[in-house]
Parts: sequence; C-alpha cells; structure tokens
Amino acid sequence: MKFGIIGAGRIGKIHGANVAARPDSAVVYVADADPAAAAALAKATGAKVAEIDAILAAKDVEAVAICSPTDTHADLIERAARAKKAIFCEKPIDLDVARVRACLEVVKQTGATLAVGFHRRFDPNFASLRKRVAEGAIGAIEIVSITSRDPSPPPVSYIARSGGLFRDMMIHDFDMARFVLGEEPVAVSAMGSALVDKAIAEAGDIDTAVVIMETGSGKAAQISNSRRATYGHDQRVEAHGDKGMVHAGNVHETTVELAGAQGYTRDKARNFFLERYDAAYRNELDAFIGAVKAGSKPYPDGEDGLKALLLADAAYRSWKTGQRVAVG
Amino acid sequence: MKFGIIGAGRIGKIHGANVAARPDSAVVYVADADPAAAAALAKATGAKVAEIDAILAAKDVEAVAICSPTDTHADLIERAARAKKAIFCEKPIDLDVARVRACLEVVKQTGATLAVGFHRRFDPNFASLRKRVAEGAIGAIEIVSITSRDPSPPPVSYIARSGGLFRDMMIHDFDMARFVLGEEPVAVSAMGSALVDKAIAEAGDIDTAVVIMETGSGKAAQISNSRRATYGHDQRVEAHGDKGMVHAGNVHETTVELAGAQGYTRDKARNFFLERYDAAYRNELDAFIGAVKAGSKPYPDGEDGLKALLLADAAYRSWKTGQRVAVG
Amino acid sequence: MKFGIIGAGRIGKIHGANVAARPDSAVVYVADADPAAAAALAKATGAKVAEIDAILAAKDVEAVAICSPTDTHADLIERAARAKKAIFCEKPIDLDVARVRACLEVVKQTGATLAVGFHRRFDPNFASLRKRVAEGAIGAIEIVSITSRDPSPPPVSYIARSGGLFRDMMIHDFDMARFVLGEEPVAVSAMGSALVDKAIAEAGDIDTAVVIMETGSGKAAQISNSRRATYGHDQRVEAHGDKGMVHAGNVHETTVELAGAQGYTRDKARNFFLERYDAAYRNELDAFIGAVKAGSKPYPDGEDGLKALLLADAAYRSWKTGQRVAVG
Amino acid sequence: MKFGIIGAGRIGKIHGANVAARPDSAVVYVADADPAAAAALAKATGAKVAEIDAILAAKDVEAVAICSPTDTHADLIERAARAKKAIFCEKPIDLDVARVRACLEVVKQTGATLAVGFHRRFDPNFASLRKRVAEGAIGAIEIVSITSRDPSPPPVSYIARSGGLFRDMMIHDFDMARFVLGEEPVAVSAMGSALVDKAIAEAGDIDTAVVIMETGSGKAAQISNSRRATYGHDQRVEAHGDKGMVHAGNVHETTVELAGAQGYTRDKARNFFLERYDAAYRNELDAFIGAVKAGSKPYPDGEDGLKALLLADAAYRSWKTGQRVAVG
Repeated sequence: MKFGIIGAGRIGKIHGANVAARPDSAVVYVADADPAAAAALAKATGAKVAEIDAILAAKDVEAVAICSPTDTHADLIERAARAKKAIFCEKPIDLDVARVRACLEVVKQTGATLAVGFHRRFDPNFASLRKRVAEGAIGAIEIVSITSRDPSPPPVSYIARSGGLFRDMMIHDFDMARFVLGEEPVAVSAMGSALVDKAIAEAGDIDTAVVIMETGSGKAAQISNSRRATYGHDQRVEAHGDKGMVHAGNVHETTVELAGAQGYTRDKARNFFLERYDAAYRNELDAFIGAVKAGSKPYPDGEDGLKALLLADAAYRSWKTGQRVAVG
Repeated sequence: MKFGIIGAGRIGKIHGANVAARPDSAVVYVADADPAAAAALAKATGAKVAEIDAILAAKDVEAVAICSPTDTHADLIERAARAKKAIFCEKPIDLDVARVRACLEVVKQTGATLAVGFHRRFDPNFASLRKRVAEGAIGAIEIVSITSRDPSPPPVSYIARSGGLFRDMMIHDFDMARFVLGEEPVAVSAMGSALVDKAIAEAGDIDTAVVIMETGSGKAAQISNSRRATYGHDQRVEAHGDKGMVHAGNVHETTVELAGAQGYTRDKARNFFLERYDAAYRNELDAFIGAVKAGSKPYPDGEDGLKALLLADAAYRSWKTGQRVAVG
Repeated sequence: MKFGIIGAGRIGKIHGANVAARPDSAVVYVADADPAAAAALAKATGAKVAEIDAILAAKDVEAVAICSPTDTHADLIERAARAKKAIFCEKPIDLDVARVRACLEVVKQTGATLAVGFHRRFDPNFASLRKRVAEGAIGAIEIVSITSRDPSPPPVSYIARSGGLFRDMMIHDFDMARFVLGEEPVAVSAMGSALVDKAIAEAGDIDTAVVIMETGSGKAAQISNSRRATYGHDQRVEAHGDKGMVHAGNVHETTVELAGAQGYTRDKARNFFLERYDAAYRNELDAFIGAVKAGSKPYPDGEDGLKALLLADAAYRSWKTGQRVAVG
Repeated sequence: MKFGIIGAGRIGKIHGANVAARPDSAVVYVADADPAAAAALAKATGAKVAEIDAILAAKDVEAVAICSPTDTHADLIERAARAKKAIFCEKPIDLDVARVRACLEVVKQTGATLAVGFHRRFDPNFASLRKRVAEGAIGAIEIVSITSRDPSPPPVSYIARSGGLFRDMMIHDFDMARFVLGEEPVAVSAMGSALVDKAIAEAGDIDTAVVIMETGSGKAAQISNSRRATYGHDQRVEAHGDKGMVHAGNVHETTVELAGAQGYTRDKARNFFLERYDAAYRNELDAFIGAVKAGSKPYPDGEDGLKALLLADAAYRSWKTGQRVAVG
C-alpha cells in the first residue's frame, strides 16, 4: 500500500518509518510546510517531497497519514475523503465538536475509510487487557481505573494552543475508558489544578486532574492525570469485574533489580513516549493497513474520535462549573 | 493498664486478646448484652464479667475499649468520659454529625482522653507510606489514590442499619485520605451504584462507588470502593508528589509463585480483615496505651472521627444530588 | 501440655513464649546454667526455675524443649527419652554422626517421641511450596535451588565451635532440599571460601559456599550460602519439575514501593531471623504439640536430623578434598 | 558497511535483517548450500546470491557474518581472515579446543578482526546487570547464579551432533559467568541427567545439569540448565557481592496481571529465543559494526569463545568422571 505522509514532524517520522519497514507498504510522498523536514523524511523512507494537493491527486497514493498540526486535521480529512484516499489521522480530528461532526459528515457522504490515531489501544499490554475483558476473564465490568502521567509538561506555548489538559492529554484516557468499559459514560465529574507549573494556570489550563464517570448501567471509571512523573511515563490501566481484576502495568527500562542496604531498586518506567509506545505505533499502522486491504472498517474510527472529545468537553465544563456534567 | 472491654463481639475479642497479650496491660472486666459472649471473652482474657455501670465505677479500671454496636458509642463515650476513664472507641462515634459534635463537647469539657479506632493508620504498610510522605520522600503531595474492596458484602440486614457505604465502609478511606494528604478536603464528588447485589439497592444503599475530593490548595484524592473482590481483601494506597510516588500494596497469603503453562500465579491477597489487619489492631492498641501512659494525646482522636464523617456525609449528598458538595 | 524448657537463651525464649501463648499448653519449669536467664524466662512464662534433673523427674512435665548448647543435646535427649518425656530438640542432635546414631538408638529403644527443630519447614511460604510440589503442581521434580544468606556472620568465637558452615548453617538447606526433593541425595560436590571475614578462614571455616547434589534417579539440587547479605535475610527456595516451577521468595518489611528519579525502591527483606521466621517457630511448636496429643509421630524427626548431618559431612569432605563425595 | 552473509538459516536471517535495517550497512551477498534459502534471504535484504569464494574475493565486501553449520566455522574464519574481511561468527568457533586454537592462531597472524556471537551479553537486561557490577553497585563479586532453561529440547538428531549440553547450551552460561565474574574460573564440578527425554540419554547426552565453578580468589558461580520450561524461556542471572545483589529477571509477554479466585496470574516469559533476544541480536551487530568502524577490537572475541569452550570441556569431564576438574 502506497502512502502519502502529510506532516514530517516527530509523529510523521514514526508513521513514515513504520510504513517503510513493512514489505508490503511504502511511503511515496511526503509533504511538510518545512521543506527541510519533508526532505529528511522523504530521504529516510525512499519517498519524494510533494505538495499536499499533488499527493491527494496522485493516482498511486492509496492512503494518507495525516500528521500535521491539529488545526489542519479536519480540513485534510475532508480533502482526502473526497480524493478517495484511505485516511489515517492523528488524534484529534479537531478541538471543536461541531467541526468534528461536520468533518465526519463528509467522511460518511464520501464513504471514506478513516482511522484515528489512538495508539494506546494497540499497545500490547492494553490490547491484552482489553482482550481478556472481552473474553470475560473478569466477568461484568464494574470499575475501570486509569493512571496517566507524563514525565514533564510540554512548553506553555504548546499548552496555550492545545485545547487544555482534558482535550490534549486526558483524551487518550477517555478513549481508553471507552475501550475497556464497553459502554458509554453518561456523566462526568472533574477536578483539576495547576500544581506542576504556575505558568500553566496563567495560560488558563491545569496540569493535574482527576475525573470520575459513570455509564447508564452504573459502571464507573476513574482517571488521574498529571503533567509530571519523576519515575518515567506512568501509564496504567486496571479493570474490575464481578469475577476479578485485570491490571496492565508500566513498562520498565530493564528487568534488573538491585538489592542492597537501601532496599531493592528496579528501573524507572520507560520515559519517552515514542519508546514506551513503539510497538503500539507499529501495531496501529498494521491494523489500519490490514483493515484497508481487507475492505473492513478500521478502528478506532471517527465516531471514537468524536466520543472521546465529547467526554473531554464534559470534563472541561465540570471542572469549570464545579458540577457533574451530562455527556453530549 | 487495666481495661474494661464493653462489647465482646468480633472486634471486642481482638482488642481483648491484644490487651491481655501485653505484659503491662490486662483486661479486668468484660460487659456484653449477651452473657455467653461476655463470659467467653472474660475467660479467654482472665477477666470477670461485669455490667457497664460497674466497669465505669470500678476504681481499678483505667481504660475502656468500646466495642459495642455503633448506636451506643456516643453515649458510652460520654459516660466513660465523666467516669474519668481513658477511652478507646471503635469507629464511628455516631452516624449523625450533630450527635458526634455533642459527644465531643462532653469529651472536651471532661478533659477525657479519646482515641477512635481507625486501625488502618496502624497497618505497617500504610504507616510506612505515611511516614515517607511526612519525611518528604515524594515531595509536595499532588494526588492520593485509594482502592478499597471488601471480599463480599455484609448481610443486607446489617447494611440497612449501617449508615450506608460512605459512612460504613468508605469512612476508613476518608480517614486514610486525610492521613496521607495532610490537608483537609473541601469538596467531594461521588458516584455510586449497586452492582454486587440488587437487594442492597432495595435497601437504599450502593455497593460500588468512586469519589474524588480536592483540598484548598488543589491537591486531589480518589477513592474507589466495592463490596466485592474475588482475589482477597483489596487495600491499596498510592500517593503522588512532585518528587515521586509511593505505593502500599496488598498483603498476599504467601510469597509463593507458581509458573507453568498457565503463566505465573501467586497467591490471593489476605482475605479476612482480621488477618489482613492483625498487626494494625495490635499496633493501634499499643499506640493508645503508650499515649495514655505518656500523658500525651492519642491519635486518631474525636476530631478525626468527626472529619471523616463530614466527608462521608458530603459524599452521600453528592451521590444523592449528582452535584459536587462542599465539606462541612 | 506442660513443658519444661531447658535453655533460656534466645531460642529458648521463643519456644517458651510460644508454649505460654497457647491456651492448651504451659511452661511449668525453666532450667539454665545462668540463673538470671532462667529466672527471666520463668517469670515471663509463669513458670518456675528448676534443675534439669528435677524437670525430668517431674510428674507433671509431659514434654521438654531442649534449647541448650549443641554439645548437650544428645545427652539431654537420651535422659529425656528415658524419663518418658516427649522431646522437642533444637537442631542439631550432635555435630558427630556416631554420637547422633547412638542417641537415636536410645530414642528407638525407649520408644520416645522426638522432633528436631528444622523450623523452616514450618514457614508458611516454604510449607506452601512443599505442599504444591506434593500435590503435583509442578509434576516430577527436576531441580531444587536454595539461596540462603545471613545478614552477617556470627562471632568468630561461635564459628570456631559451630562445626563449620556446612553443619551449622547449610544444615537447614540440606534439610530443605530433602524436604522438597522427596528423594535422598546420593552425591555432593561443594566449593567454599572465606570472602566475608578472613578471621573465619583463620578459624578453619568458610563463609561463602555453593553445593550441588544429585539423587539416585538424577534429580539435582543447588545450594548457595553466604554469611553476608546487605538487603536482609535472603531465604529463597525454587523447585522445577516437568510441569512447571514454584518459587518461595523473601518476606519484605512492608509492601511499600517508592518511585522517583532513582527508580522504584521497595523494602529490604526482613533482616532478623526471629522476625523472619516468627510464624515458623509458632507453627513448628503447634505441629509438635498436635502430634504428641494425637499420638502420631512428630516431624521432622531424629532420622531427618541424621540425614541432614550426613549431607553436611559429605559437603565438608567434598570441600576439603576437592572431590565429589558419596553420602553416608 | 557491506556484508556477505554465509548461511541463510534461522540465525542468518536475523543477522541479515539487522544489517539491512541499519542506514549505514547493507547485505550485498548471501551464500547458502540451499539455493532457495540463499535466494529468499537475498531477496529480503536486497542482496545477491553468491558462492562463498566469490564473497570472500569481492572487493566491496568489508565484513562477513558466518551463520553456517558449526563444523564449517573454523575453516570459514580462517579463509575470511586471510581475505581481510572483518568477521562476525556465530558461536562456537569449533567444538574441538585444538581446532579453535589453530583457528585463532590464523586470526592472530592475519591481524583479522573477529567477534563471536555470544548475543546474551548484548541483551539490555544482562548488559545493564554487568554494567552495574562493573560500576561497583554490588561491591566485590562473591557468587554468580545463572538459570537457563529452554522451552523444549531440539530434535535428538541435532543433539547427536551438537557437542552435548555443556558445549551446545551451557556454553552461553559459561560465557555469561565469565562476563559477570570478571575473573576466570579455575575449577568446575558438574552433575547431569536426562530427565526430559530418554532418547537424549540414548544419544549419549543429558538435558538437565547443574554446575559449580570457582575462581582463583574464591569467587563462585552456579549454573542450572534444562531443555524444558513450561512457562517460557527461563533466562535469569543473579550476582552477589559484598555490598549487595543484582538480578536480571525474565522478560514477560506483557505487563498484564489477572487477579481472581485462582490468585494473581501474569504472563509467561517470552518463549521463543528470537523474540526474547531480539534486542540482543540487534545490539550485538551494532557493537560489531561500531567496533570495526572505529578500528577497535570487537567483543566478545575469539579468546572468549575459547575460554567458554574450555569451561564446557571441563564440565563435560566432571560429569563423565564424577570429579572436580581443573579448567584448561
């Protein structure tokens, strides 16, 4: 399958390398507003630099990976949908629900294939947890608990344009909660504060938050987020059901443990998200290519993107108003 | 130190045995509405059966352990306070905040010594976690997460009189949150449902709940509770701060792990709370006796009992109203 | 069951306290060459001080616990056997195989009941491991691996009289190997050196040793010993069979784990053997009393004591000669 | 760096793919006695099929990776050395010590660069363990313990030509022991038996073995091997020193743990050695290429290959004779 990669930044490089490494897929074109970035990725993947229009017009391009800034996603999805390309788009589709709905309407009308990049679903640990839940290993779900802490906050300049913690960071956890719960949350309560960096508060955002949600049948989910973790990228999911519990823990740097007068010490969790989730990014693309080849619906899709955003919006309003908020 | 034990049920037996096992303390009298229960505990501890009045009047009784039903606690505390006995009372002081306040007023006026039985503070694991937090091992607290699941629900008849999950079960976790946070929560949001037993819903209660709280400075706490756990008594506390994280895990039956075609399997967590918390009950009484002997204030005290109850009441109102509730 | 305790040192105090704590047993007499030690233990257990002869002659003494120095064990066992007392004797019976055989002959002729204090068999973790092996959880045994490291060496003055590392320390591991293997080792190879303290070498002993053994059917066992461990008392057993593996790990001080920039740190293993093995000492005496009451053979018995000593002797000769040595 | 790959079997494919995946290296030729195998690997790596002579004569080939059957290694090393190629050779150089010495003499005379494929040194876990030992984290080494169990035995036809368990399987552990000990073992005692498959005994070999070794200064090492493990590929190393202990544990399939009425169950260890050691194979080649580029000596080298073989031979003789055997 031949890809055009739109956006040659950090995440574009990941997807480009993963496409190039498969024997049955190739990057043929790379576009980026920064010519040097486009050229570098094109060289690394054996592709050519091209304008977005040219990529979308190219007959030999079957799929595009949209890795450009967030505010370009919805527009590019619509253009690619009309150009009959299979679309893999980094999350989010847009920070605005109305814009997302309009975009998904175009996707629907054009019959386009769209996958949204919630890569954590493809992490081998979380995928295994979800598989066990689906197989009934813990029975009927009762409570899902998600802990998600980044090693350190992004620049405040990024935060100011990010849509805020709920839409930028916790969106992954909202998607994970939906993925594991198997039922839609209908109400959200959120609390948050800026404990890591006061500049984040000045930018109108928070860096520390806890959220609870419930579904129509009374299942519950908890999420805790922080923009700080000294011991690595903390990414854990736990699900409780009437037959038991399943937990996916952190991935540590090595299996080594040192014991001495100070106690027993093992390594930090993997710190850098591209290393932590290297298999997830690879598997995500494999799943997209597999679905497109098979003519089946890739997953997670635009609706998943929308629903996670609706949860983020509800959490944002709950944090702002101090009230429990109904979803959607 | 010579004790009168009031209430010879399950928890009275624990405290009676712990008093009797110390070389410097003794049970001298036991009272219980059930003469057979009183006689059995008296025999086991080398004490005599007596009426409550007689115990409170006895010159050689320095301390009483109140282990009778909840609705007798406040009255007994007041009587023991007026009788100048040091008082160790099982939680809660009362299910009604006004009654607790009135009782504590009597304690204050009489200058009585009162400790309330939040035994989990004395569990070696949780005590060690708290000590490290206090020593600054994780820096300034950001988020405290508490998971607390009982192996199975008590009889519905008990639940109907219990004050409900928040006052009966989660009260321990509210106390633990205060213990670890080091700052009072000012707002509570709660969600809950009856997933374990529909009869619990019919009794007006829930068996599954999640709560978030925040303090004035923006610290957060999460609690999850269930009346069901198939893998033992699940009792975990985790605290995050700006320098790191500290976690107190479950106590497993043994350290044995079996590996085979099914994977690696280790034992369930200790299932029965009296075994899980055997050291906590012992240490709790040691601390009480130590404080009384030293003439210092025992801990946790009546104010701790009141504050945990205020959190439970706030959670109850949040669950009922669907709104975030200010504490107190 | 009424006990006379012979020897009021560290281990005598443990057994005395455990006898006294049971509702159905009591210490009635304590003997020790040091009158103050005898008096202290007698006071703590509600017993009287007595001479050994008087204890053995006392009609009301049903059992004796021999906790005196090693070189008195065999003689005391014989005297107690002739006095028709049930005998619990600390390991070893004697450091000399011929003396042990003679002693066991007296035990046999008198029909006396004798248990030898290999307390580790009664540790809940090792007992559980053994139970699973016996139940077939790992299938037919292939290899047993034992790691046993003391926190620090005893005084050189003790080592000089101890019979050496194999008879004094590794004897517990030889017994554990027999306990788990379920088949007698027939050959032993040993290597050892003094790495902890050169004074130990000067006393003719070693402080670090590794041993391999094999049984007639080709099962194997490994033991490693050291008189030094900075991270607590290291006591682990692992058994491999054709269906899997079972491992009993160390008992840590708490379940707390601290994560920070240094990694994840958990507590040291329990350091002091009396704390590490508190349940083992209690269970060991329970088993002895239970067996005597039931009229059944207590375990481990004199033969177990002899067989462990034969393994220690074989290891000693292997170390000295540099050759593999047949057992017995 | 341009490579010729000699041998296109399982391990040749691994090294070929790793060479091809690096931006600065390439496979240019592949040779194999089986033309189809050679063609397949050539296609996968973008190389051409060639005869060995042609590869060695080719001007553009800077390095060869020898991945052919064991009995061809020494001869190919000599030819490649004379052809001035940098040589990466799979272990062992030969099963016969005299042949290895002769081969290494040629390597010495030609000044050739030779690395031997003890890939486990490059496993991130074992490499980290070794690094900590080298940095003094556990102080002066006392005991090294290695557990190494394959999921299941190779075909008996392979075993018959393999040189036996000590030279074929435990050779990796002898190298690991040397790697960690930092001092040469001078004596070996071995025990072994055929517990997995009687046909292995009939082929004159064993499938279960335990070995102890000591160095001149009294450090000790233990190795246990089995050709069977139901719970995955069991690969653990533990090192004890005067300041503490360091342990490298197994790599499990995921971090997921399931808790229920059966206890807590986590995944098996990774079962297939090519997955278990994927990073090790990659890192091994990176180190070889890095050394050749830098003009430094690659590691482990021919002497390491020889010394591991000498330990295997000593273990073999110890097993056969029942005596401790001096090395070399």
